[in-house]
Amino acid sequence: MKDKPLILVVNDDGYEAKGLEAMVEIAREFGEVVVVTPDKPRSGVGHAITFKSPLRVHQYKVKDGVQYWRTNGTPVDCVKLGQKVVLKDRHIDLVLSGINHGSNSSVSVIYSGTMGAAIEASFESPAIGLSLLDYNLDADFTTAIHFGKKIVAEVLEKGLPPRICLNVNIPKGSIEEIKGIRITRQAEAYWHEELIESTDPFGEKYYWLTGHLENLDDHEDCCEWALQHHYISIQPVQYDLTAHRYMNNLKFLENVR
Amino acid sequence: MKDKPLILVVNDDGYEAKGLEAMVEIAREFGEVVVVTPDKPRSGVGHAITFKSPLRVHQYKVKDGVQYWRTNGTPVDCVKLGQKVVLKDRHIDLVLSGINHGSNSSVSVIYSGTMGAAIEASFESPAIGLSLLDYNLDADFTTAIHFGKKIVAEVLEKGLPPRICLNVNIPKGSIEEIKGIRITRQAEAYWHEELIESTDPFGEKYYWLTGHLENLDDHEDCCEWALQHHYISIQPVQYDLTAHRYMNNLKFLENVR
Repeated sequence: MKDKPLILVVNDDGYEAKGLEAMVEIAREFGEVVVVTPDKPRSGVGHAITFKSPLRVHQYKVKDGVQYWRTNGTPVDCVKLGQKVVLKDRHIDLVLSGINHGSNSSVSVIYSGTMGAAIEASFESPAIGLSLLDYNLDADFTTAIHFGKKIVAEVLEKGLPPRICLNVNIPKGSIEEIKGIRITRQAEAYWHEELIESTDPFGEKYYWLTGHLENLDDHEDCCEWALQHHYISIQPVQYDLTAHRYMNNLKFLENVR
Repeated sequence: MKDKPLILVVNDDGYEAKGLEAMVEIAREFGEVVVVTPDKPRSGVGHAITFKSPLRVHQYKVKDGVQYWRTNGTPVDCVKLGQKVVLKDRHIDLVLSGINHGSNSSVSVIYSGTMGAAIEASFESPAIGLSLLDYNLDADFTTAIHFGKKIVAEVLEKGLPPRICLNVNIPKGSIEEIKGIRITRQAEAYWHEELIESTDPFGEKYYWLTGHLENLDDHEDCCEWALQHHYISIQPVQYDLTAHRYMNNLKFLENVR
């Protein structure tokens, strides 16, 4: 590692999010920081990319030596634009995504723009997605910053396995209320959706997508258990979606003619 | 299974795609068919959902007994709207996503709207994402329809493991050119991105995201091998992103205080 690592910061809550400033506070402690974020909130866009319309990216401020860029693209686009356009293929030591306003535990990882960006980044660099369990726009990031700095220090020193990123979720509450850190697996939990029907002033129906997470998993090694018991959950995340254990069961399909 | 299964058809190429009509042709052979698709092409949006703006969904035609609905939402939204609003929580026997114009093999699965919808659907029903290796708007779907029907027949008869969907990729070419079907795992392959810079008439720079897939995997059990050798690739797909094999290596992070 160089003396001053290069850290790319991205997020999905957009350039005005308080969680972004919290992440910059973490990153500045360790190296040269460049920020590339969406020009509006892009929560829940998962691994979406933009290739059927032009991408724009502009530097909008420099503050305390940190370059801030914003784009009309998605969080994953922020990573690609950061690597290729803003940093022109310079070696990036770490990509930090977040700090997200709200949990990205269990199945939420597949809907999460924060984690989409972290997964994309992990193809080329160590990467960490950081989320605080507080959706409030004015959430208190003190605890997340405190532990975020310690986790980043460890990752910069020891590295991560290739193409693995970390999904870090931090419970709401004070530093003293955190019981510790757990390495977890994804809990078996699903969103139970509701679509709230409403009618606009012109008589047309529309729907708000909402819902709650239903946790079916009470084992101590999963993220939901850790978070419910005031532990920080750190989950190693990869991108292979193959259901390896079912490959043999489905061999009968090879006989279809 | 009932005599006449209920099949929900979704896609990411939008309501005007030729691949959608191909999928309806497959589905109609087996049951009652309801179509819910985006009102414009939404390729590459992965598992994106819409919850910060209102969703609309309208029936725009009924043809040969098939209901067609379109929405301003994403492919994953199509699944949720189909289940809750259009079909009002009726039991769905199978969700079919596609037929996609273009490959969704290897790492493309995480960027794919087609597969995002199939994964979402698999939380509640058997689901299959079907893709033809031909991006052409006017692609010939004869081969895909031929084998699609056979695969759907098998899945309707034998079912799928819970919360597992199939990622089916079909090589371009005639029925005779297909050598057979392989159950595959995701190849180790990555998009090598390029961002093509251009300047608009107002002097502002913009970028087109493009690239090519770099395959690092020549093993016979992976999707890229199968497709290059004129086999249909069928991949069982799940949604757990935990990198289970690295959980022990990262235990040192539990000591951070």
